[in-house]
Amino acid sequence: MPVLLPDELVQPQGGRIVYVVMDGLGGLPRSDTGLTELEAAKTPNLDRLAATSALGLHIPVDHGIAPGSGPGHLALFGYDPVRYNIGRGVLSALGVGFALVPGDIAVRLNFATLDGQGRVVDRRAGRPSDSENRRLVEKLRARVAAPPSVSVHFEPEKEHRAVLVLRGTALAADVTDTDPQATGVAPLRTTARSKAAEPTAAALQQVLDSAFDALTDEPKANAILARGIDAYQEYPGFRERYRLNALAIARYPMYSGVARLVGMRTLPPAESDAASVRLLAQHYADHDFHFIHFKAMDSRGEDGDYDAKVAAIEAVDGLIAELESLQPEVLIVTGDHSTPSQLRAHSWHPVPVLIASRWCRGSKGATFGERSCGAGELGVFPAMRIMSLALAHAGRLAKFGA
Amino acid sequence: MPVLLPDELVQPQGGRIVYVVMDGLGGLPRSDTGLTELEAAKTPNLDRLAATSALGLHIPVDHGIAPGSGPGHLALFGYDPVRYNIGRGVLSALGVGFALVPGDIAVRLNFATLDGQGRVVDRRAGRPSDSENRRLVEKLRARVAAPPSVSVHFEPEKEHRAVLVLRGTALAADVTDTDPQATGVAPLRTTARSKAAEPTAAALQQVLDSAFDALTDEPKANAILARGIDAYQEYPGFRERYRLNALAIARYPMYSGVARLVGMRTLPPAESDAASVRLLAQHYADHDFHFIHFKAMDSRGEDGDYDAKVAAIEAVDGLIAELESLQPEVLIVTGDHSTPSQLRAHSWHPVPVLIASRWCRGSKGATFGERSCGAGELGVFPAMRIMSLALAHAGRLAKFGA
Repeated sequence: MPVLLPDELVQPQGGRIVYVVMDGLGGLPRSDTGLTELEAAKTPNLDRLAATSALGLHIPVDHGIAPGSGPGHLALFGYDPVRYNIGRGVLSALGVGFALVPGDIAVRLNFATLDGQGRVVDRRAGRPSDSENRRLVEKLRARVAAPPSVSVHFEPEKEHRAVLVLRGTALAADVTDTDPQATGVAPLRTTARSKAAEPTAAALQQVLDSAFDALTDEPKANAILARGIDAYQEYPGFRERYRLNALAIARYPMYSGVARLVGMRTLPPAESDAASVRLLAQHYADHDFHFIHFKAMDSRGEDGDYDAKVAAIEAVDGLIAELESLQPEVLIVTGDHSTPSQLRAHSWHPVPVLIASRWCRGSKGATFGERSCGAGELGVFPAMRIMSLALAHAGRLAKFGA
Repeated sequence: MPVLLPDELVQPQGGRIVYVVMDGLGGLPRSDTGLTELEAAKTPNLDRLAATSALGLHIPVDHGIAPGSGPGHLALFGYDPVRYNIGRGVLSALGVGFALVPGDIAVRLNFATLDGQGRVVDRRAGRPSDSENRRLVEKLRARVAAPPSVSVHFEPEKEHRAVLVLRGTALAADVTDTDPQATGVAPLRTTARSKAAEPTAAALQQVLDSAFDALTDEPKANAILARGIDAYQEYPGFRERYRLNALAIARYPMYSGVARLVGMRTLPPAESDAASVRLLAQHYADHDFHFIHFKAMDSRGEDGDYDAKVAAIEAVDGLIAELESLQPEVLIVTGDHSTPSQLRAHSWHPVPVLIASRWCRGSKGATFGERSCGAGELGVFPAMRIMSLALAHAGRLAKFGA
């Protein structure tokens, strides 16, 4: 990785940073009102902050690119999301707390239902409960035979999702998914995309075949589908790159996974967003940097529910004052990408970002919305640069050059 | 150096460019008025220009990075400040007019005072006068013995500052400073950071030891401290890159040094900023490009004196009309970085830039200030691109592609 400039200038001391990620924050205007979800939402706390903060729009990955959650968050944390394009399997494994070592192959699994002809009829096996999920994983652990020289690890995630890790020497990740991403067809067989990956494809297929045997008498979850296959590599972490002792507060394993990937400490998920904020406050004194993740904006956007996304934004606004009361030197509020409810999907639209600190120009009358942020002092800029700005505003960067 | 696009498109003819650098121009709002130094300053000339100019904010090096004067100016001149990160010793040597050749090692020196135990008691030796400085440098020239195969050159700078140049074959710059940057401790010994630099470290230490012997009976300046050690490399100059016959008018050696580094002609410093403007006017007909540097904004910002910085800005505004009267095809006014008086230091905040020419869109009601420039047609953009805009507005760039 080419060292980013801030890494060389980082100082060991400085102010505390609270980094709020409102997942899927950005949106599009409703045709009747002309307002985006964020512009329509009543956000008195964020609007008050906006007037004295540095505002801008960030581009998560590149112009026109709609990012997944992994690249979206990596960019927010100052990692080049194209260079560090990480498979979902690795994020899931880290998210459930599995201690990956470099070279491990991590695979995302869905429990699925096949019909008598071996065709997928439900890619989610009727969404089993988490306890049912754990029972199925225990069954796999008990019955699946490991291929020669490879150790096999199954971990439950949530509902129909689980994680498979293959550990061995000389495994390679360039093998194909078995999830056909459709019903009415049989699961695919994994194949190697390179000569070097042939032993891995053979081992993975052997594990999957053994799993199908193990699940054959299950009424619903009688198969597994594999995707997001990737090898784990170690990332230069927050402590090493930024000299930050970082804490992540997230209620979904995926986001804890990304945070762990970059060396943040994680905690067991809180029961609610308000409880997440209390958890952060409890551990505030012990860390320099606090990432807190709120999910609902993205979920409601993907549901296509404009009003529910507005309500989700308003709920987070209600938690901002408690974060402010911790008096961090830098408070950042942004999203990892846009999820316009009209699109029902992640999108490429630039994302509002607010940096509150003593050292901002601010702008009278500014509010926290897409158009208002677009007129802000930060301009439209790459998400990867937010960390430099965070460190600068926290007094943690030395001057560059004589 | 990867050739920037404008270099390939540059035409031999075109209009004249006057490039005004108001050092440390950008600032932060005062909490009571909400106005930055520039916004508070009465700048009738700059405001009049702003309404018909292209306005924007430039980012000197990168988001969140506070640049030193060297990288700040290199970026303004269109050179990648990270790739061309140059040591202060080289800038000082060029600043005092020393004719460096590639491979020379240039070192910034402070005259300092040591106590009887050899500990630094004053890192600036009581700030000797310039004539006292010259006397001390003459003494060093007369008494310091050159190491084998190395020639040694001392040059006076100002007050307590001088320059040392080592010239020889196979010298390397990766040796450590001897300035402890503190009092109460002894000067450090220089050490090599690489095998290749060991002969250089030995030669430099021998010169320093000899200098200490030469100065031993001085009441105040009985030692020298070395820092900013760097090797000189040749830069592709303004004539080569831009086909510009460039003149630099600066009253501080440091800025003349950067200008010489990129092949500008320099003149002996004028006695005042007004005299600098007259000097530029005298030599106007002989050059295509005129860089003029005004220092006081930065100094008053570093003093933490908001009102004095306002006054410094107003003083430069008073000189703008005389520069306009030369009728350059392009008049650029900007800073090399921000120096908010609240921070008392260089900062990372984007810097206002104004490009006045016949070929601008302009904006009715615009003034020359941070917020007004942020809404301008140039947006928030890298300082390195200002030169392309200067050349374009001067009619000096051909169309790119068919």
